[in-house]
Amino acid sequence: MSLLIDPAAQDLLFREARTANTFTEEPVSDAQLEAVYDLVKYGPTAFNANPLRIVVIRTPEARERLLAHMAEGNRHKTASAPLVAILATDHEFHAELPHLVPHAPDLKDAYFSERPVREEAAALNGALQAAYFLIGIRAAGLTAGPMTGYDADGLRKEFLDDDHAPLMVVNIGRPGPDAWFPRLPRLTYEQVVSTL
Amino acid sequence: MSLLIDPAAQDLLFREARTANTFTEEPVSDAQLEAVYDLVKYGPTAFNANPLRIVVIRTPEARERLLAHMAEGNRHKTASAPLVAILATDHEFHAELPHLVPHAPDLKDAYFSERPVREEAAALNGALQAAYFLIGIRAAGLTAGPMTGYDADGLRKEFLDDDHAPLMVVNIGRPGPDAWFPRLPRLTYEQVVSTL
Repeated sequence: MSLLIDPAAQDLLFREARTANTFTEEPVSDAQLEAVYDLVKYGPTAFNANPLRIVVIRTPEARERLLAHMAEGNRHKTASAPLVAILATDHEFHAELPHLVPHAPDLKDAYFSERPVREEAAALNGALQAAYFLIGIRAAGLTAGPMTGYDADGLRKEFLDDDHAPLMVVNIGRPGPDAWFPRLPRLTYEQVVSTL
Repeated sequence: MSLLIDPAAQDLLFREARTANTFTEEPVSDAQLEAVYDLVKYGPTAFNANPLRIVVIRTPEARERLLAHMAEGNRHKTASAPLVAILATDHEFHAELPHLVPHAPDLKDAYFSERPVREEAAALNGALQAAYFLIGIRAAGLTAGPMTGYDADGLRKEFLDDDHAPLMVVNIGRPGPDAWFPRLPRLTYEQVVSTL
């Protein structure tokens, strides 16, 4: 066996984990979300940039505002999930770098003074952190339903600002009845990997 | 406790896991890489797109060709890692969709006929898969050293083609002496999460 984590963890995080389309009514607490974040915050980002920001949609009023921007096919499940989070990138992440990388105080201005450079770094590293977050939700025994089907400009105007861009919206909860279809195939190692 | 995976797995994947700058000489086998991929391939991507492609650099000749495109500060560790992989996105990933999403045979042409749409989807979903891969390397008891410091155009011309873009280069092995500096701080839950 080449893997060191036990089969139960492999199943929980990857093999048995699925993206849910229905949820039970069991609530997801702030304490659960904080435990997820406090695990996955250690995942690596380039220059320790930490560009991910999370907007948790907890009130019915905020949920209604969100639903208006979701694609038709995502609206029903987003309405019924116990909790929904907007994952976004902060294009002003470099403001935190003097604190996050104290041994390189010039990093903020020397490397990230230009907005397009920051947007590119935020898109990649924010997506890495989004993936860590999805894994963390599964590590908490919950199911995540990541979605990119929404009006990005509308979502940005409603919940964010010009310095933040949405990455995905994630439904969070426990799987309900008929939560998923049969698993779809994946590309094989041979299809994905070439060796030189 | 809000987390379901055991503390050993939490440590292996996140809390104790670190990005290594030095490596032992212990080789990394194709069997190990295949075990990693066969775990993390189940991680979710939008439309089950699976856009990640991996070029494994195994021969000294290929390593030399790679080093020429790495940033100065990454060259020494990339030269000394037991194995190096280029993670890239495939902008023609939609060709596989009829196989990957058999119940929606029109997805390939109806949704992904335009290249910019595919590039955007590949960038996000490829980065998610790259993060799953980094977690998988850790799940195998190995350390990953992801890097974005390289000449992207040079790397693309050397190892890829116009339909593929590099996401990152990853050193893979077991940590050597003085493999890392003390861990840098992370943004706190309160800094990252806002609740509505």
